Amino acid sequence: MKDKTVTTDTPDLDERHRRRMQRKKELIDAKIAAAQRDCGVIVVTTGNGKGKSSSGFGMVARALGHGMKVGVVQFIKGAVPTGEESFFRRFPDEVRLHVMGEGYTWDTQDRERDMQRAQAAWAVAREMLSDPSLGLVLLDELNIALKYRLIDVQQVIDDLLSRPEMQHVVITGRAAPPELIEIAHTVTEMGVVKHAFAQGIRAQPGVEL
Amino acid sequence: MKDKTVTTDTPDLDERHRRRMQRKKELIDAKIAAAQRDCGVIVVTTGNGKGKSSSGFGMVARALGHGMKVGVVQFIKGAVPTGEESFFRRFPDEVRLHVMGEGYTWDTQDRERDMQRAQAAWAVAREMLSDPSLGLVLLDELNIALKYRLIDVQQVIDDLLSRPEMQHVVITGRAAPPELIEIAHTVTEMGVVKHAFAQGIRAQPGVEL
Repeated sequence: MKDKTVTTDTPDLDERHRRRMQRKKELIDAKIAAAQRDCGVIVVTTGNGKGKSSSGFGMVARALGHGMKVGVVQFIKGAVPTGEESFFRRFPDEVRLHVMGEGYTWDTQDRERDMQRAQAAWAVAREMLSDPSLGLVLLDELNIALKYRLIDVQQVIDDLLSRPEMQHVVITGRAAPPELIEIAHTVTEMGVVKHAFAQGIRAQPGVEL
Repeated sequence: MKDKTVTTDTPDLDERHRRRMQRKKELIDAKIAAAQRDCGVIVVTTGNGKGKSSSGFGMVARALGHGMKVGVVQFIKGAVPTGEESFFRRFPDEVRLHVMGEGYTWDTQDRERDMQRAQAAWAVAREMLSDPSLGLVLLDELNIALKYRLIDVQQVIDDLLSRPEMQHVVITGRAAPPELIEIAHTVTEMGVVKHAFAQGIRAQPGVEL
């Protein structure tokens, strides 16, 4: 490994690095001084890129690491058993996990049935959003259910806004509706730069499943 | 809740939905038929948006759910104890976790010391990348170490390309170098739509920490 080690034999580079880092530190310190409020935040991850649900489940792990209890409702998905589901089922006292039944809507092609299921799942979500013992609630793929108008967006907004003050909510899925983006604190658009699928590689357990 | 329930009393909408879902299903089935190869994938999450590291930790949870063993090296970060670290330390037989010492580089302003630490962390990563018992390796914030040239990118590429065939690697952090994007299978650019920080809300445990 030694021959490839990057060396810093130029004092200029060291000095430039020091000055750049110092400016960066000042900037960050000022921003930190300005941001002092604590509250439950609404985080939305949307866009076509890979990482929306996995980011939500990473926040579940983070919350558990801080001793919080967590609620999870998975909308739309459900036909395929996933790694995150079997993993988080290990902690029934810490994670309340509800998976909406029977697969993607394009597998069922039955709007009435999809709608009943989505609304039943929302009833579970709603209960979580009124439970102050839950520090974080993940509503995985909710955006898809909203996009296909399986759940009323105004109902969702009302329930989100009346949740406990310190409860965090993470909402994932492509095509987040503008009403939701409006009330969210943090919104990330995940863009595809490239995807393994397009290179003929199927969904890999541990990565996509 | 009943008064807000969305009803489907228009058969046209049901029929349109059915046709649209059928077309979608055909498209997806064709794509699935084309993607049949299995291999260890390299996933890169980059950009300025929130969700890069949490997505990596979500994939760690997924991999554990499939019974894999996982390796994690956290580059740059380390001064602040994080939720993900305390959570995944619960599983010492399943997760090998290495956190690079002492905080962000802009807190140290000492390039020589940063470089030594980053290279020591890479030596741990390299060992994981030659261990076929690890199904997934997360190199969290590696891109930052590459951006500040604390580790040689060619060394990283060489070690990634010589890893076990079925091992997945997830690399996170702003400003992924083009050489890394070139060899990756899946790359997501996470864009900021909005961030709680800009609204005066500090980093919240369970969400950012």
